[in-house]
Amino acid sequence: MNRLQIGIIGGKSCSSAVARIAEETGRLLASRGAILICGGMEGVMEAAARGAQAAGGLTIGILPGPTKAEANPFVDVKIPTDMGYARNAIIARAADSLIAIAGEFGTLSEIALALQMGKPVVTLASKWTIEGTVKVNSPEAAVDAALRCVAKVEKTEAN
Amino acid sequence: MNRLQIGIIGGKSCSSAVARIAEETGRLLASRGAILICGGMEGVMEAAARGAQAAGGLTIGILPGPTKAEANPFVDVKIPTDMGYARNAIIARAADSLIAIAGEFGTLSEIALALQMGKPVVTLASKWTIEGTVKVNSPEAAVDAALRCVAKVEKTEAN
Amino acid sequence: MNRLQIGIIGGKSCSSAVARIAEETGRLLASRGAILICGGMEGVMEAAARGAQAAGGLTIGILPGPTKAEANPFVDVKIPTDMGYARNAIIARAADSLIAIAGEFGTLSEIALALQMGKPVVTLASKWTIEGTVKVNSPEAAVDAALRCVAKVEKTEAN
Amino acid sequence: MNRLQIGIIGGKSCSSAVARIAEETGRLLASRGAILICGGMEGVMEAAARGAQAAGGLTIGILPGPTKAEANPFVDVKIPTDMGYARNAIIARAADSLIAIAGEFGTLSEIALALQMGKPVVTLASKWTIEGTVKVNSPEAAVDAALRCVAKVEKTEAN
Repeated sequence: MNRLQIGIIGGKSCSSAVARIAEETGRLLASRGAILICGGMEGVMEAAARGAQAAGGLTIGILPGPTKAEANPFVDVKIPTDMGYARNAIIARAADSLIAIAGEFGTLSEIALALQMGKPVVTLASKWTIEGTVKVNSPEAAVDAALRCVAKVEKTEAN
Repeated sequence: MNRLQIGIIGGKSCSSAVARIAEETGRLLASRGAILICGGMEGVMEAAARGAQAAGGLTIGILPGPTKAEANPFVDVKIPTDMGYARNAIIARAADSLIAIAGEFGTLSEIALALQMGKPVVTLASKWTIEGTVKVNSPEAAVDAALRCVAKVEKTEAN
Repeated sequence: MNRLQIGIIGGKSCSSAVARIAEETGRLLASRGAILICGGMEGVMEAAARGAQAAGGLTIGILPGPTKAEANPFVDVKIPTDMGYARNAIIARAADSLIAIAGEFGTLSEIALALQMGKPVVTLASKWTIEGTVKVNSPEAAVDAALRCVAKVEKTEAN
Repeated sequence: MNRLQIGIIGGKSCSSAVARIAEETGRLLASRGAILICGGMEGVMEAAARGAQAAGGLTIGILPGPTKAEANPFVDVKIPTDMGYARNAIIARAADSLIAIAGEFGTLSEIALALQMGKPVVTLASKWTIEGTVKVNSPEAAVDAALRCVAKVEKTEAN
């Protein structure tokens, strides 16, 4: 079986409003059958993983440090890379498409890396307007767009 | 829940005898509840993933190339790193302990990286005798040793 | 001796106007005694290396692929990483400060990674306006700002 | 100009006898015009860099941590990777051939990674006997073999 792997990216600290958005996005993603790829740390990553796990989904944390210990409690599979911010590139590679929620420079680097790799990127509550990203206004729209974009990429590659 | 993550490492081509050993090791590992970490390619990696998946286990492939497409069909979660052999270091990091089955230079590099990181390494059907590894003669003994070694490491760290 | 290492980043294809700016920036950087860190490929990277080498400077190319062969002819030290875009993070790490000239998503990822690491970033002929970067209008101003920013960072760290 | 880049690898702590061997190997390598690639830390890496620098050579340190500060004082170009032991793979990639002097598991991983990449590896004062490596007994023999092996590889590739 080839399940979709969708990334949710965002800052390791965030407001409670952004955390609620991330949790709902994670929950919807899992309910649609996708595996969650995230950075495994706190903030948006933790909220998204909590939402996905609550909906029975599988959560993957690609961690910057050397041990599983730093993962948030909602990560099922912990991949400590010991590669610092270079792990941002692995998150982008491992995701079929990405949803960026708010975020700071780390998130911006992941957006840019994903776009460089030709991956669809959906943004939600973002302060940046980057050409080539799809801007949406709700978790539902974000999940819809993230899944639909992958289908389009795969159809294009099949032709 | 914090499931153990055990690596099975070995060559991307192997004899059918070695493939049978790898498949049985994967099966036993999954039946003991561990998540399989492997390189996601053919040979020992594929046989181990097939065995683990058949036993209802979860299989993770940390891939050297840029896309999920190169993963063998028994990998549930595909992590394309686009980092070539540097991904060997991520496999060693992501595993709580490792079982090396036969293998060539790539496997030797993973054994050495894991030992450098202080991870327990069990070898089976290996042509190398490396100080600090635990040499065993059967899939049962390999899985027993791999799980027992992690328990010992965690007990030591807790004290 | 501890020579400054300054990054010049930008796209692997660029207009001849941008190439002239990059070459002049490389030349000025070398004439001020800094080592050039770049991605080692074509476009802005090649122009900057050509300028730096012409002024007697030392040029370092941190390459995405597996071999030295892909480096442009003006790179003195070739570091093939075989890590694809993850090498963008190494460029940011290796530079004391960075000058971004024009550029696309790859450059944006390097700007964001550098800012995440707390490195000063100067932009020239850039289409992005990213908070925390220093926007300048000439190679002279870029080199001045890149060198001055490092001095300021080092003074702060020393206090 | 396309200068050879030769790696000297070995432990970050070593006996003074091994340090003398590493320093002499570095010195000879530089006197033959090669750029020294090393891990940039203490022990064999420092001794080799000291020798190479004393002979007027250029020394490159590919560091495991996030800053230039951890480099030994004899490294001219400092490449902090923040990638821990995964930087071992970059050292192997960046070197045209490698000389391993004594060493522990880290060195063994670099030998194995280099052999996996098809790079010639010369060993000196090594406790391991790995198929495919060239065992020598003196710094002179090591440098001769390391340079001769590269010439042979390049000749083969040219045909």
